[in-house]
Amino acid sequence: MSDQCLFCGIVAGDLPSVRVAEDDSTYAFMDISPASDGHLLVVPKRHSKDLLEIEAEDLAAVSVAAQRIAKAAVGVLGADGVNLLNCCGADAWQTVFHFHLHVIPRYADKAKERLVLPWTPGVPGDTDAIADWGKRLSAALD
Amino acid sequence: MSDQCLFCGIVAGDLPSVRVAEDDSTYAFMDISPASDGHLLVVPKRHSKDLLEIEAEDLAAVSVAAQRIAKAAVGVLGADGVNLLNCCGADAWQTVFHFHLHVIPRYADKAKERLVLPWTPGVPGDTDAIADWGKRLSAALD
Ligand SMILES: [Zn+2]
Ligand SMILES: [Zn+2]
Repeated sequence: MSDQCLFCGIVAGDLPSVRVAEDDSTYAFMDISPASDGHLLVVPKRHSKDLLEIEAEDLAAVSVAAQRIAKAAVGVLGADGVNLLNCCGADAWQTVFHFHLHVIPRYADKAKERLVLPWTPGVPGDTDAIADWGKRLSAALD
Repeated sequence: MSDQCLFCGIVAGDLPSVRVAEDDSTYAFMDISPASDGHLLVVPKRHSKDLLEIEAEDLAAVSVAAQRIAKAAVGVLGADGVNLLNCCGADAWQTVFHFHLHVIPRYADKAKERLVLPWTPGVPGDTDAIADWGKRLSAALD
């Protein structure tokens, strides 16, 4: 819990939100600047700053809650797909420093969303560089 | 397991990949069309099509594996942040229909990435519409 934290305030009920669902460890509420119809956020009730800090059990709970809500978005809102997005760090577009997972319903009807693909898919990378990144990560993880 | 599935082939070792990490239920390997230096994918070893189909326990395992790898990307590759992204459905940019979570290291040095923000943040949505989506989702989830 952080006294200065916007999302801790929402979880505690001290700040308003449009609540979607909650369980023992997670709370879900609508994004007030939606990228698509039904865009919402799932957060752990226990404060953690970001993906690097969140307890694994909270991350698992948030992920499974997001899946349950994604299914509801398809069933209830008629979404044709869903994106899950986490932004960890200011350089990755994080703006509120309480871990949150975006659940972004997607639609064949593009009038219901205002997203653009964040990168150009299918552009082959440099094979040697890719092998090097993989080797260095693998060495740190094995 | 699907005989036609690219990622099942990678998990089985029948198709090549630059392996980063694996455990009993997950496999992580480099994306061959990286959006940033070190961009990789984490998949469940057990085939499931997408976020709507994946078993909750596999989703939790993939998420926790992605966190562990994200920490390595910061420590080993010098990333300044990380994005996690899942694309569920063709309308949400999914192209391989075996669940996968993108782990996208992010950098203050933009020469190391080729991403654009997928939506314009901070544009307020329609308050009534947001309340309506929340009400309908909440009713389906409570
Ligand atoms: Zn907080
Ligand atoms: Zn598969």
